[in-house]
Amino acid sequence: MSVDPASLSYEDFVQGIEDRQRRRQLLFREGRPYFVLVSQQFSRADLEGLCDTATAIRRLDRHRDGVDFLRRILHGHRVMNLFAQPSTRTAESFIAAADKLGASTRLVSDMRTSSFAKGETVDDSVRTLSSFFDTIVVRHPDDDFAMRASWALARSGRPIPVVSAGSGKSQHVTQSLLDVYTLRYSFASRGGIDGKRIVLVGDVGRNRAARSLAYMMTKFDVHRLDIVCAKDHLPEGGLLEYISRHGIDVRIHERLAPALEKVGKEVDAVYMTRLQQEWDGDAGGTPDQKGKLGTNEDFVLHPEYAKYLRDDCVIMHPLPRINELPEPWESHPGFVVWRQVRNGMWMRSALLASIHGAADEIRARAARLSLV
Amino acid sequence: MSVDPASLSYEDFVQGIEDRQRRRQLLFREGRPYFVLVSQQFSRADLEGLCDTATAIRRLDRHRDGVDFLRRILHGHRVMNLFAQPSTRTAESFIAAADKLGASTRLVSDMRTSSFAKGETVDDSVRTLSSFFDTIVVRHPDDDFAMRASWALARSGRPIPVVSAGSGKSQHVTQSLLDVYTLRYSFASRGGIDGKRIVLVGDVGRNRAARSLAYMMTKFDVHRLDIVCAKDHLPEGGLLEYISRHGIDVRIHERLAPALEKVGKEVDAVYMTRLQQEWDGDAGGTPDQKGKLGTNEDFVLHPEYAKYLRDDCVIMHPLPRINELPEPWESHPGFVVWRQVRNGMWMRSALLASIHGAADEIRARAARLSLV
Amino acid sequence: MSVDPASLSYEDFVQGIEDRQRRRQLLFREGRPYFVLVSQQFSRADLEGLCDTATAIRRLDRHRDGVDFLRRILHGHRVMNLFAQPSTRTAESFIAAADKLGASTRLVSDMRTSSFAKGETVDDSVRTLSSFFDTIVVRHPDDDFAMRASWALARSGRPIPVVSAGSGKSQHVTQSLLDVYTLRYSFASRGGIDGKRIVLVGDVGRNRAARSLAYMMTKFDVHRLDIVCAKDHLPEGGLLEYISRHGIDVRIHERLAPALEKVGKEVDAVYMTRLQQEWDGDAGGTPDQKGKLGTNEDFVLHPEYAKYLRDDCVIMHPLPRINELPEPWESHPGFVVWRQVRNGMWMRSALLASIHGAADEIRARAARLSLV
Repeated sequence: MSVDPASLSYEDFVQGIEDRQRRRQLLFREGRPYFVLVSQQFSRADLEGLCDTATAIRRLDRHRDGVDFLRRILHGHRVMNLFAQPSTRTAESFIAAADKLGASTRLVSDMRTSSFAKGETVDDSVRTLSSFFDTIVVRHPDDDFAMRASWALARSGRPIPVVSAGSGKSQHVTQSLLDVYTLRYSFASRGGIDGKRIVLVGDVGRNRAARSLAYMMTKFDVHRLDIVCAKDHLPEGGLLEYISRHGIDVRIHERLAPALEKVGKEVDAVYMTRLQQEWDGDAGGTPDQKGKLGTNEDFVLHPEYAKYLRDDCVIMHPLPRINELPEPWESHPGFVVWRQVRNGMWMRSALLASIHGAADEIRARAARLSLV
Repeated sequence: MSVDPASLSYEDFVQGIEDRQRRRQLLFREGRPYFVLVSQQFSRADLEGLCDTATAIRRLDRHRDGVDFLRRILHGHRVMNLFAQPSTRTAESFIAAADKLGASTRLVSDMRTSSFAKGETVDDSVRTLSSFFDTIVVRHPDDDFAMRASWALARSGRPIPVVSAGSGKSQHVTQSLLDVYTLRYSFASRGGIDGKRIVLVGDVGRNRAARSLAYMMTKFDVHRLDIVCAKDHLPEGGLLEYISRHGIDVRIHERLAPALEKVGKEVDAVYMTRLQQEWDGDAGGTPDQKGKLGTNEDFVLHPEYAKYLRDDCVIMHPLPRINELPEPWESHPGFVVWRQVRNGMWMRSALLASIHGAADEIRARAARLSLV
Repeated sequence: MSVDPASLSYEDFVQGIEDRQRRRQLLFREGRPYFVLVSQQFSRADLEGLCDTATAIRRLDRHRDGVDFLRRILHGHRVMNLFAQPSTRTAESFIAAADKLGASTRLVSDMRTSSFAKGETVDDSVRTLSSFFDTIVVRHPDDDFAMRASWALARSGRPIPVVSAGSGKSQHVTQSLLDVYTLRYSFASRGGIDGKRIVLVGDVGRNRAARSLAYMMTKFDVHRLDIVCAKDHLPEGGLLEYISRHGIDVRIHERLAPALEKVGKEVDAVYMTRLQQEWDGDAGGTPDQKGKLGTNEDFVLHPEYAKYLRDDCVIMHPLPRINELPEPWESHPGFVVWRQVRNGMWMRSALLASIHGAADEIRARAARLSLV
């Protein structure tokens, strides 16, 4: 039954992860996540556990005793954040998450200064750098870098856990984990995520966060997913079929205003995203072209659309935002965007704690202190 | 009476800081500095307290027990150093200062890798990054960046203290704090800073350190301030009037030698600065033009000028120096330039401790151990 | 007898280090290394002690108590890694080494952002930055930078230890220390390094690691050193004479295959290195020219050469490797390349501990726990 990743070719490892049966054997060890690569790898029970751990950490962190307790969890442990694709906010979120558990952290972001530049293979580079660490967090423009690194480490003499912090255009697992956590938290007094109706707005095809969240929603009994997206930016790779197959009613809209006008009052959460212009050859995402940045009218949540939504509708955005979610929304009762940012840190702490088998201890401590 | 920064527009916040009455309400909380933006914000009592705390920290740091005590002060606390304008020495000084109190520190220096580059507003960027930290230290080429960041955080749901580490050409508050500390220390057996006569030499108009020190001197009964400065580089923005208005006798000289020849024996401290050539369009401050770097003869403290000065005259420089303070001065009894560098670290520790309400505890501990 | 480095001119300091008699007086304090600049500075007893300390640290690190014990050794201590020549792997190895002893570490790698760029002297820059630290590790493309920094600090009012992490083309001391450690470990059941026969393959003239190892071998009774090297890349600067003078039988070969065919079965270790193409004006070492990277057939250890070697022959490489040590060698019983990487971290910890007088305490602790 069990599969030893060390015995597989890279192609077989990738195929194994595609396969729902073998995926868990390849990515988990002793029931705990070891390689965190795709949103699909987590069961609903995994997600509930991660959310509970995140809440325990968040509350323990408010008191000096809790802070000291948490900083013992990964004391002496070293986490490398290998960010070939720069992303200050995600890197700082991971670093804060590890730091709160007492781990030592390093950010390696300039790949040109490593031996990658001297003609070394990716496998050698990752193995060498991993020698000084106990966990590696990777972000890379190549879709398969985190997977390749996991495979190379699995067959090395000293494997360590790998967490993807975003790979190319494909997925952004930890963003979807924090989104699930934020939704669950927001719906705590309304029966949780099950039965809810969610609207995803923007460049869903190229926005890793939106893609990963859509995958994650299939783990819950989400009632309906409305996607508001330009035709050119519809997700590829079978995402829509995947969601439908999991029993979620998916609808596509080409403009935001008419969609909200029709169904806004039934909507429980609106998840906004920005246009991913950095992937466009012509537009680019450089500050010099700031004037051109931002999405067009069809995908902006104008303040006057508040009338279409209920007051308890949750408003989310993975940030950064350009023009699609204007500032007046900050005073809307359901605006949880800044909470999402903090939740990212708590959820990443929870993930690291789970990987290293400390989740039970953390939740038990919080329970004993009546914090959860 | 009290002013809530959260309720002000940015323009009103800036105006409030210009106003001596409202400044303290905007920049202090519970009697402690919260936003550290301008030299003028500190009262003489504030400055004396910071100096005493710096001395306590410096002496506690000499013993293992003291080191351990200090590292508990900000244990679990996270400090971000956001340096959009690179300055390794200032950044490392702040990082060492926070590290000595046990805080976790991060240096974020490549703004291009953050979402600033994706068209996000400064307010959003600062709020997002601040989510992972408890204090933010900022250095930026724009004169008002630190102020803008303070305002944005003041009105956010999770404000944290902001310390300016130098803004554009305007001010360099913590440099002036360390200079005050060094002067006070140097004059300890001669009645302190009051009644002293100080000479400021160099590009006073564009040197942040010199400008900030001049402001700071008005908090003490400095007898006279001689400024030796090329006509083109005289300070703007009412600095000279401000100093005169505070009862200090200010004199301007165009060349150093004749000024020292005339008044040198009455001078208690000479504060040298380099020519800020990086602001000159033509000269630049790049290493390739090293040959051109440095000030002209009129503002160099030649070793032979020692004859004009008393042996107990204090010789200071904020560094880096080019040619204006030659190496032979290192053996002068009043040469305290390297002490200034160390004092910068101690004073920044004292400032962080004061912001977070730990100054009294630190001074009490040092007193109990008879260290102060 | 004793020499005070502070009283020497820089030229005398450099000459003093060339002189075997005065070297120890200049580079050691109270019998402990203070400035670590050249492989020749260590006696055989120094090397044995460093190896024993490295083993003690490696074993203590396996248990929570040992981890906590180690992290108290340099608690409150600050180590700057000043890497003007980027090298992610060496920097991360040093940082991990210091971190395991509980020191706070900083990596300063972009010299353009420091005041070096403002026309400041190297002496001032090093002294300023050193003010915030207790040890400095330096890597620089200039052969004499670490030496100059040591001299400048020796004559400052606050000297701190300096460790070279590789200087120009000349030496890479800590690499040779880890190589000695790995050899000693590999030959533990075969009487140690004495009497062994070692083959050095590749660009020995320009490979710092190979050069430094060759120097180090003279401290042991190595039987014979075979160097397989293109005529153009033979080491300069008297290295071969130096080794011969120390009683080692040195032989030069121009191609690897015939050399191994003849003497392979008598060889105890093969030390492979890559062609240092980054020093070639035309070839360069950039990723764009990847196709051109790598050594030619004469210096590749082809898998089929295994038949020429004994099974207990040790296979080493300082990494990164290009094509000269193909992947199939990983399953050879003597392949210790990944162990070398880990050993680098342990040896650098041992070096830092020795510099700061903690080596005895660490070895005693490990002995008491029966770990060594």
